[in-house]
Amino acid sequence: MKNFFSVADVTNLKSVVDEALSLKANPFGHEDLGKHKTIGLVFLNPSLRTRLSTQKAAMNLGMQVIVMNMDKDGWALETRDGVIMNGTTVEHIREAAAVMGEYCDILGLRSFPSLKDKEADYTEDLFNKFVKFAAVPVVSLESATRHPLQSLTDLITITEHKKTNKPKVVLAWAPHVKALPQAVPNSFAEWMCKAQEEDLVDFTIAHPAGYELSEEFTEGAKITNKLDEALADADFVYVKNWSSFKEYGEVYPVAENWMMDNEKLKLTNDAKVMHCLPVRRDLELSSEILDGPNSLVIKEAGNRVWAAQVVLKRLLEGLK
Amino acid sequence: MKNFFSVADVTNLKSVVDEALSLKANPFGHEDLGKHKTIGLVFLNPSLRTRLSTQKAAMNLGMQVIVMNMDKDGWALETRDGVIMNGTTVEHIREAAAVMGEYCDILGLRSFPSLKDKEADYTEDLFNKFVKFAAVPVVSLESATRHPLQSLTDLITITEHKKTNKPKVVLAWAPHVKALPQAVPNSFAEWMCKAQEEDLVDFTIAHPAGYELSEEFTEGAKITNKLDEALADADFVYVKNWSSFKEYGEVYPVAENWMMDNEKLKLTNDAKVMHCLPVRRDLELSSEILDGPNSLVIKEAGNRVWAAQVVLKRLLEGLK
Amino acid sequence: MKNFFSVADVTNLKSVVDEALSLKANPFGHEDLGKHKTIGLVFLNPSLRTRLSTQKAAMNLGMQVIVMNMDKDGWALETRDGVIMNGTTVEHIREAAAVMGEYCDILGLRSFPSLKDKEADYTEDLFNKFVKFAAVPVVSLESATRHPLQSLTDLITITEHKKTNKPKVVLAWAPHVKALPQAVPNSFAEWMCKAQEEDLVDFTIAHPAGYELSEEFTEGAKITNKLDEALADADFVYVKNWSSFKEYGEVYPVAENWMMDNEKLKLTNDAKVMHCLPVRRDLELSSEILDGPNSLVIKEAGNRVWAAQVVLKRLLEGLK
Repeated sequence: MKNFFSVADVTNLKSVVDEALSLKANPFGHEDLGKHKTIGLVFLNPSLRTRLSTQKAAMNLGMQVIVMNMDKDGWALETRDGVIMNGTTVEHIREAAAVMGEYCDILGLRSFPSLKDKEADYTEDLFNKFVKFAAVPVVSLESATRHPLQSLTDLITITEHKKTNKPKVVLAWAPHVKALPQAVPNSFAEWMCKAQEEDLVDFTIAHPAGYELSEEFTEGAKITNKLDEALADADFVYVKNWSSFKEYGEVYPVAENWMMDNEKLKLTNDAKVMHCLPVRRDLELSSEILDGPNSLVIKEAGNRVWAAQVVLKRLLEGLK
Repeated sequence: MKNFFSVADVTNLKSVVDEALSLKANPFGHEDLGKHKTIGLVFLNPSLRTRLSTQKAAMNLGMQVIVMNMDKDGWALETRDGVIMNGTTVEHIREAAAVMGEYCDILGLRSFPSLKDKEADYTEDLFNKFVKFAAVPVVSLESATRHPLQSLTDLITITEHKKTNKPKVVLAWAPHVKALPQAVPNSFAEWMCKAQEEDLVDFTIAHPAGYELSEEFTEGAKITNKLDEALADADFVYVKNWSSFKEYGEVYPVAENWMMDNEKLKLTNDAKVMHCLPVRRDLELSSEILDGPNSLVIKEAGNRVWAAQVVLKRLLEGLK
Repeated sequence: MKNFFSVADVTNLKSVVDEALSLKANPFGHEDLGKHKTIGLVFLNPSLRTRLSTQKAAMNLGMQVIVMNMDKDGWALETRDGVIMNGTTVEHIREAAAVMGEYCDILGLRSFPSLKDKEADYTEDLFNKFVKFAAVPVVSLESATRHPLQSLTDLITITEHKKTNKPKVVLAWAPHVKALPQAVPNSFAEWMCKAQEEDLVDFTIAHPAGYELSEEFTEGAKITNKLDEALADADFVYVKNWSSFKEYGEVYPVAENWMMDNEKLKLTNDAKVMHCLPVRRDLELSSEILDGPNSLVIKEAGNRVWAAQVVLKRLLEGLK
């Protein structure tokens, strides 16, 4: 593994999930692997789970961790070439990434999309430039269009809790008050589509009309605008809001009730309910589900450590 | 010890102070105890001494430390139940605390009171919910009504510097320009009242009329509105401002001069002067005292490490 | 070495550079030296390279690192004596520095100049008070008038890349949109002047009229207002903007083109080009140079680790 950006960086999903679960069973079995190695976690946007779980994973492997909150330090980066830097950006990403690569053996980068410039967001301009100039392996801590550590976590969690060989997994859109990125659902979709290819899950996406995801992430998925149909016999329901891809970043009013609640849960096969968090209670997902026996959200968040740890382990092994 | 929130979490003050002093004499004698254990320090409000000393204490015990500044990361928490989260709070404390508990073996939490909603502050709503949902031991890094690591530090410092078996300790109100919480004086009072029960100190509180502390913290203390009377024969004077408890959060004008200075020090038994810091020079406490031989404030701040270390040691021992 | 503030804290430049290069060859050879030692890095102003490289250097030596961003924590310090603290400053530097000294074996401090009060800046009031009250060794992470870790880095980098025994080094002023401190050029000048005394370099400073540096830093340097003359036969060109010292903090319009570019590079002896970063592309320095074979800026930034490491090593040795 050279970088970790999308499902394409993993050749066999079952094998990486199995390795993650063996790390969960024995967290400190590889703490010599990261000795004298430093990971730099660069946050252009806020983070709770990603920061803590990646830091924990790195420490479990014996690494040193340096955290940089670029957004808080007012360190505005220039990403365009051919620009005379006489404005407000203080440093070019060419220098910033290269310098951080001088100090760190592995870098992690979190950067959210603008939700305004679809092309820049979907070409992953910022993340790609960071990778290009950093000269060391880079782990996505969520980029404009993907959140692969979350998706790997989700597959680990499904594997742990499935009762059948090939559970039915539903990605269900839910309401929100803000315009959110498509990164989590894009990423979940591309990981589940690949898991479906490997015969690990049966995958359905349900969303209101107008909330179609980019087709590059959903090939092979069943897609419907009817939540009830999707929920039938579901073993796992993955609840998540996203803003429109077509009318980029727009939030359409949705007349029907798409909030996941106990009433809808009755349609499923006593499904486990997942969410990447943070979740807006009683807007995206009902409190009764979150506080009830079907919720996996806390265990799912806990599994973020093992997703990060298996990825860092493979990147460390690649350094040798 | 399951959590550390108030003096009630310690059964024998003398024993915990003695253990802290033995850790001071041999800081690294237990560094295997915290191996592979992680403490998460969560700050909803700023901190200098508490952050540094707790971090140092944890590292002395071999722990990994993760610091989260929630206030700076714009991670506004919802604490109320039954609320549709369609406003500005991004995550409910139920999820936030539970998730942090997934990544950490022990959590520390700092949260100041509102000074507006007396009931919410004095029921310690936020701290209690955090404890309830975190599922791991929680150390108070100062809560709405108490600052127990400070009070334990103060008792350690008094023990180190006392010249008699049962020194006279005076908590003396002092002026300030801002409305400050009652957490430090409440906590100091409840620790000194218990120390008095154990025959370790003789305890007096002096404050202007209107600045009465809640009686739940002061049972057994002598209380007076006459500073001069209180200072007579004092061995230790603990200077601190607080806002009104009765007229909650109010700052009353005080006609008399309550700033501690050398003139007032003459009334004492050459008393050592303490303050939890930060201190407003020449408003709460005179520079001549702070820069003179009677001040213990720097040594007191240094002792914060050993208070934190004995508490973390006991919590770690409780994990096994 | 008791503190690290200026070139005067190093007796023999060649020896400290040689030691830094041996640490670069063997970064972990002294990791027992820093065991059980803590460094506190206190930032009153933002930092990227300094923070990361100093943290890395300290970890290479086995130290524990605590980072404090005072600017972000709203912890406004009072530095004046004899002031009644009834305003916005929350803590006096006397207490703040002393307390941090209680928790740390070595402290690092970054503080920028006001660029308004020349006397306060050039007497290094804040840094000196911090040293005075901290009671432990203090490393400058850039102060009002100097950036010694940068200058030591620069000498290390020149030593690594020089092709002759005594290369010609030119400090060349460059344009900028903001009023920048004189700290980097002052410091570079005093280190190069001393290096010239030790016969290690031949040193010239070029700047437009009005941008004279304080003479205390430039004794022994050739100084010219003609960039072309300075560049002739140069082996290293150190590009940097600074604001006026005479008309303190002023930015004068400069009619001629002082941006370093390939055209000017032709005048040199195929000079290597250096810059402390962050650099404003195509304003201070052309992209063609930065992206071309003559630029040392990334390697220079990488060398910040070894400058910090040799300084920390010597301070640690001084602790014993």
